[in-house]
Amino acid sequence: MELNYIEHIGIAVKDLPSAIGYYEDILGLRCYSIEEVKDQKVKTAFFKIGQTKIELLESTSPDGPIGKFIEKKGEGIHHIAFAVNNIETQLGNAASKGIHLIDEKPRKGAEGLEIAFLHPRSTFGVLTELCENKKQL
Amino acid sequence: MELNYIEHIGIAVKDLPSAIGYYEDILGLRCYSIEEVKDQKVKTAFFKIGQTKIELLESTSPDGPIGKFIEKKGEGIHHIAFAVNNIETQLGNAASKGIHLIDEKPRKGAEGLEIAFLHPRSTFGVLTELCENKKQL
Repeated sequence: MELNYIEHIGIAVKDLPSAIGYYEDILGLRCYSIEEVKDQKVKTAFFKIGQTKIELLESTSPDGPIGKFIEKKGEGIHHIAFAVNNIETQLGNAASKGIHLIDEKPRKGAEGLEIAFLHPRSTFGVLTELCENKKQL
Repeated sequence: MELNYIEHIGIAVKDLPSAIGYYEDILGLRCYSIEEVKDQKVKTAFFKIGQTKIELLESTSPDGPIGKFIEKKGEGIHHIAFAVNNIETQLGNAASKGIHLIDEKPRKGAEGLEIAFLHPRSTFGVLTELCENKKQL
């Protein structure tokens, strides 16, 4: 694969407004967008720091992936997302090397990016997202 | 606080050589340094991606912080580290706002940086490191 940079870090939180308060008032970052991704049963809040974004994720349902994650592991870092070009090629490359894909094909994620996840059982426990901004092309 | 960028993401792994193999052969990154931090009972491997580093952490002892983390939560993302200037001022700032500090004063971390951790119970579950490269001054 060819990874460009860390596009964002996804962090699971129980309550978005309190967590946004911490990131703004204590860490000094600024929330520039709040967006619901119905498909994933999450509400997200975005902050920019250097080249990377922090994506806070609050579950809109206990049976969503973030709800289940928090129930099992508590609040905390949920995934890491790498910016790539040609996401389909990168996924094919990973699959050809035996990596288990959660998404065989890219789908629409927050901020209109094309995204796909690699399974943590193939990635030493790290839920790994690839994402491509095709709007830049 | 004033955070400059994400200096690194710390990832707990059981076996450093296998994990390095994944980061190099599958993700296409290059391990540029392996270093033991005896104080923390870890062996670390570093990769650079864009502005940020990935720091893999293998415990050199079951009773070290990474050994305990893996026993409790399994392999995965362990902490996030922000580059700051004037780390002592940033720590004072955090403490004055009620953030629980693991390190009241900076100590020496990997790569010769001055580092200090904020406690995850004050940071919505995210073990948070501040680090400053005083050698740049």
